[in-house]
Amino acid sequence: MFDSLAILGSGLIGTSVLLAAKSRGVVRRASVWDIDPAHAAAKAGPAGADRVAVDAAEAVRDADIVVIATPSDTVADLVARVAPSLKPGALVTDGASVKGHIARVAHAAMPENAFFVGAHPMAGSEKNGPAAARADLFEGRSCFVTPLSGRSDDVAVAKVAAFWAALGASTVLVSPDDHDEIVAHISHLPHAVAVALGAQLAGKPDLWRDCAGGGLRDTTRIAGGDPEIWRAILMENRHDVARALAAFEDELRALRECLEGSDVRGLVARLERAREWRAGLV
Amino acid sequence: MFDSLAILGSGLIGTSVLLAAKSRGVVRRASVWDIDPAHAAAKAGPAGADRVAVDAAEAVRDADIVVIATPSDTVADLVARVAPSLKPGALVTDGASVKGHIARVAHAAMPENAFFVGAHPMAGSEKNGPAAARADLFEGRSCFVTPLSGRSDDVAVAKVAAFWAALGASTVLVSPDDHDEIVAHISHLPHAVAVALGAQLAGKPDLWRDCAGGGLRDTTRIAGGDPEIWRAILMENRHDVARALAAFEDELRALRECLEGSDVRGLVARLERAREWRAGLV
Repeated sequence: MFDSLAILGSGLIGTSVLLAAKSRGVVRRASVWDIDPAHAAAKAGPAGADRVAVDAAEAVRDADIVVIATPSDTVADLVARVAPSLKPGALVTDGASVKGHIARVAHAAMPENAFFVGAHPMAGSEKNGPAAARADLFEGRSCFVTPLSGRSDDVAVAKVAAFWAALGASTVLVSPDDHDEIVAHISHLPHAVAVALGAQLAGKPDLWRDCAGGGLRDTTRIAGGDPEIWRAILMENRHDVARALAAFEDELRALRECLEGSDVRGLVARLERAREWRAGLV
Repeated sequence: MFDSLAILGSGLIGTSVLLAAKSRGVVRRASVWDIDPAHAAAKAGPAGADRVAVDAAEAVRDADIVVIATPSDTVADLVARVAPSLKPGALVTDGASVKGHIARVAHAAMPENAFFVGAHPMAGSEKNGPAAARADLFEGRSCFVTPLSGRSDDVAVAKVAAFWAALGASTVLVSPDDHDEIVAHISHLPHAVAVALGAQLAGKPDLWRDCAGGGLRDTTRIAGGDPEIWRAILMENRHDVARALAAFEDELRALRECLEGSDVRGLVARLERAREWRAGLV
């Protein structure tokens, strides 16, 4: 499908892209670069990277498609840095969780005859780093592909969507700003909620936590994620996340008022609404 | 350990008590009663119930230990109803999620020489009914045992705790009111939070849900629970749950204000506090 792939950032996502692309025959050759050389080298060898580059510009020089999988708040700068080294016709995509700002910077930075098309595979984990990477990480997962209206090249968008689909993901095309509003609700809001639960319960006796059942365990699992990664994501999307949180606070207050006012009908309506919605989340 | 067990309520918890008690040799014989005769009969046979009783009083008549596993808001009435039929020395325990009110009613209803000791195994599921029951449901789970200070018989408390421990649970002794405050935080609050998330997202396009990753799935799993069961639990413990919710709303608001004010240090402090707490939830 592509001859040469370059991956910038050998964390969970970047290394999983590498393993999936090589094992599925989506690319013939792959070069990787990471700010930490040990991360970049972690999956070097026949099944992984054919080359570990010493800098990002060198990694992309020969690439037909470049995947940037560094932390959210570093992607825009990195695109601008490697843009002059791209070969004619090169495609650049990324895996960052927030897309609006990156899309605007990246499109402006692209040289003639190279194309940026942002993406975001919904396939994270509370585990990070190359050791957690898996060739099947994207299988059955959604992957947003986020063209910028009036700016993206249609052929490039189709090729980048096909690349992510070839890794096993189901692609969904939305604008970068719509993406940011959607993930503020389906990813960043649940994360903030899990963090707030953990932060609140951290003030209670350890015995309370020790007695918890599976419900609390599941509800707070994502609060175990890397604070650095989530700082970057939440700050980058802070306006959309703050709006989603404010609406969620209204929903919680309404639920609390059902309890305080013994409004059984209002409570049951919410329980049923949530259950019906949850039944559709397969 | 006991000769004869009676179980009132053949749902997930009652039927799992039956299967665990028989398979582990904790009791020799078991009789069951459920308001739905089909539920009671679901696990009749050598490995399960030896007798399906037609009414609750008949089920308990011969029992050394009675486990009441009906919905939270029906336990107190049922204890009062079967109390006159208990044999001398009988123990009565339950599995309800809220303990303060039940403890007061049940202790008052007990005849001389029969003993109520409330309990609450932290082993629910979003699945309900006898079909979801498992003999190993309580293994490795916590089980609150909730004596009422100055009212409970010490020997009865020890025997009831030993019964739940024999089913595989780790028992934790706390007062009924302390129990209700603890579970308001570690069980009912996460449930309310999952429900509020589901209720909020139910107002968004289906596409949003279809794109969700594992984070939203885990965070909202318990919102799939039975609205009738959760109505009873949340209404019964509404004062403690409302207090826990109000504190959680404060925590959320503080997190939102970190985003709105670009307070990176405050945000990271919360992310780290939650991650550290979560690391201890094994």
